[in-house]
Amino acid sequence: MTSMRREIMEQPAALRATIDALLPRAAEAGELAGGTRQVLFIARGTSDNAAVYGSYLIQAYAGRLATLASPSIATTYRSRLDLSGVLAVALSQSGRTDEIVETLAWAGDCGARTLAITNGAGSPLADVADMAFVTEAGAERAVPATKTFTTQLAAQAVLAIGLGADLDTGLLRRVPDEVEALLAGPIDLEPIVAELQGVPGVVVSGRGLAYSAALELALKLKEACYLHAMGLSYADLLHGPIAVVDARTPAIVLAASTGPTLAGTVELARRVTGAGARAYAIGGDDCLAAASSRALPGPDLPEWLAPMGLIVPGQLLTEALARRLGIDPDHPRGLSKITQTG
Amino acid sequence: MTSMRREIMEQPAALRATIDALLPRAAEAGELAGGTRQVLFIARGTSDNAAVYGSYLIQAYAGRLATLASPSIATTYRSRLDLSGVLAVALSQSGRTDEIVETLAWAGDCGARTLAITNGAGSPLADVADMAFVTEAGAERAVPATKTFTTQLAAQAVLAIGLGADLDTGLLRRVPDEVEALLAGPIDLEPIVAELQGVPGVVVSGRGLAYSAALELALKLKEACYLHAMGLSYADLLHGPIAVVDARTPAIVLAASTGPTLAGTVELARRVTGAGARAYAIGGDDCLAAASSRALPGPDLPEWLAPMGLIVPGQLLTEALARRLGIDPDHPRGLSKITQTG
Repeated sequence: MTSMRREIMEQPAALRATIDALLPRAAEAGELAGGTRQVLFIARGTSDNAAVYGSYLIQAYAGRLATLASPSIATTYRSRLDLSGVLAVALSQSGRTDEIVETLAWAGDCGARTLAITNGAGSPLADVADMAFVTEAGAERAVPATKTFTTQLAAQAVLAIGLGADLDTGLLRRVPDEVEALLAGPIDLEPIVAELQGVPGVVVSGRGLAYSAALELALKLKEACYLHAMGLSYADLLHGPIAVVDARTPAIVLAASTGPTLAGTVELARRVTGAGARAYAIGGDDCLAAASSRALPGPDLPEWLAPMGLIVPGQLLTEALARRLGIDPDHPRGLSKITQTG
Repeated sequence: MTSMRREIMEQPAALRATIDALLPRAAEAGELAGGTRQVLFIARGTSDNAAVYGSYLIQAYAGRLATLASPSIATTYRSRLDLSGVLAVALSQSGRTDEIVETLAWAGDCGARTLAITNGAGSPLADVADMAFVTEAGAERAVPATKTFTTQLAAQAVLAIGLGADLDTGLLRRVPDEVEALLAGPIDLEPIVAELQGVPGVVVSGRGLAYSAALELALKLKEACYLHAMGLSYADLLHGPIAVVDARTPAIVLAASTGPTLAGTVELARRVTGAGARAYAIGGDDCLAAASSRALPGPDLPEWLAPMGLIVPGQLLTEALARRLGIDPDHPRGLSKITQTG
């Protein structure tokens, strides 16, 4: 078994440990954010995709503006901004990517309160922050991060609750069981793996909260399968990139089983198959499955929690496709576990 | 001559008219922003790529936080945020994309001051905004926007000056001449067009302010050449997607001829060619050209203005490659001039 597959299977335990450790600290995060009015996320790669979830969740449910920072404003342009009233939240698996550590320290110097979300207890990132949410993902050996992503989403759900979002913590506690059920159930990857062999690229699309899972699946397919995978929101896809979808370029569409983005996702699947291309659904409802060429099951979770389960069939698909293509998913070319960008 | 090519050639005149019309209104934009502390951009597609320039420019030179909004927070989640202290800036070529009009109106209702940057005088977007910067691009017929992008960058440079950025307006006034000189000079597209025929995809990378031009070139190549083109910042590229660069997947790298991002771009070109892949440079200096497989000239402009010229060889390359591939660049499949996303 590859490390990547083992780590995918470890996600229920990692999520359980993370939620158990962090949920009691939600109020503490709320106190840290006292007097702030908005959230600014600082991240790269998988952590950046995770932050997209946090930004939608906090804006949709906690009533605060939450956007993504450009780290090079701190590290390259060395600009000085007034960040009073801002809660800066940096996400990094290791907590050791210099660029992220430096940008969070800069945010603090500019007047922001600072929170680190990292798997690295005692890491430089945790040290530099006013407060750290340490995820309990355990060691992650495969270069393509999996447990990192889902535990970072869980940590951000706790943050949203700490910021006053009216969300049911009982539902959050159900996530590990739902992910476990999804992993235990039948997921027939083989027909999709067979069809994805040899395609030049793939478009991965999701809307709203599910956009984070679409971005993350596209990144996995790029990292581990060297596939030209574009992660796009539904709206951005229609503003140009839809032109690349054709008989040789399928679309993978992700949606929760309910919620305000489902109808648009069904519509997108219809548009893709109507243009003669294949659409593969992950999650959604019977309508989405019927509108798509093939479908993989999603989690039985409300929309605000669904991304933690929607990414899972995508992770399994990536791992299986990489092996089929003769790639060791644990060690893709050109990548190492901690990325330093100068 | 295709409409796309004609509109590329019209950019010096469009830039001149836009700068002449808007520069006298910089102070008025500054007054509108009085009492605000940050900028929030609202856009999709080409306009979203243009907003990336504005966000870097305002953060690097005007000392204000400037980030990008998620329109679906307004249109899909119908969330209510406190946007007092925010200058919301919506960009749209036509000013008629419902999603953008609705999101700017929402921002105003949430307490933001609102500015529209649009080519549509009297458009719904101009009507809904507290103030409109109307670009003078003239009619744009080709679906892939070209004049829209460069004139939107010019409008945002005026905005940055209005917000107090210490930037030389004389240099901004030089931009149309420099773009004209670039268009008049020798740009040998043929070898690159020949090599790009038949590649499965391409990575387009730029850092900081040049990132906007990289995103926009990637979008043009997707729209008009159906190429799997990924626009990525230097740092994001190294966090995973670098794995897709190989002998069949070249990278196009863009940089100004000076400034803090040039050294990293040279380094990236070396890394790409060192891995056996081709790197094509646009702009930069002799070092970047030497580190790359082939190079196209960029504008003689300082880094903060360079994106208005850096995109131009990329537009010409897109138009030429589309024709070589037998695609009518004026009417790519699946796209229309005004995109409505429900």
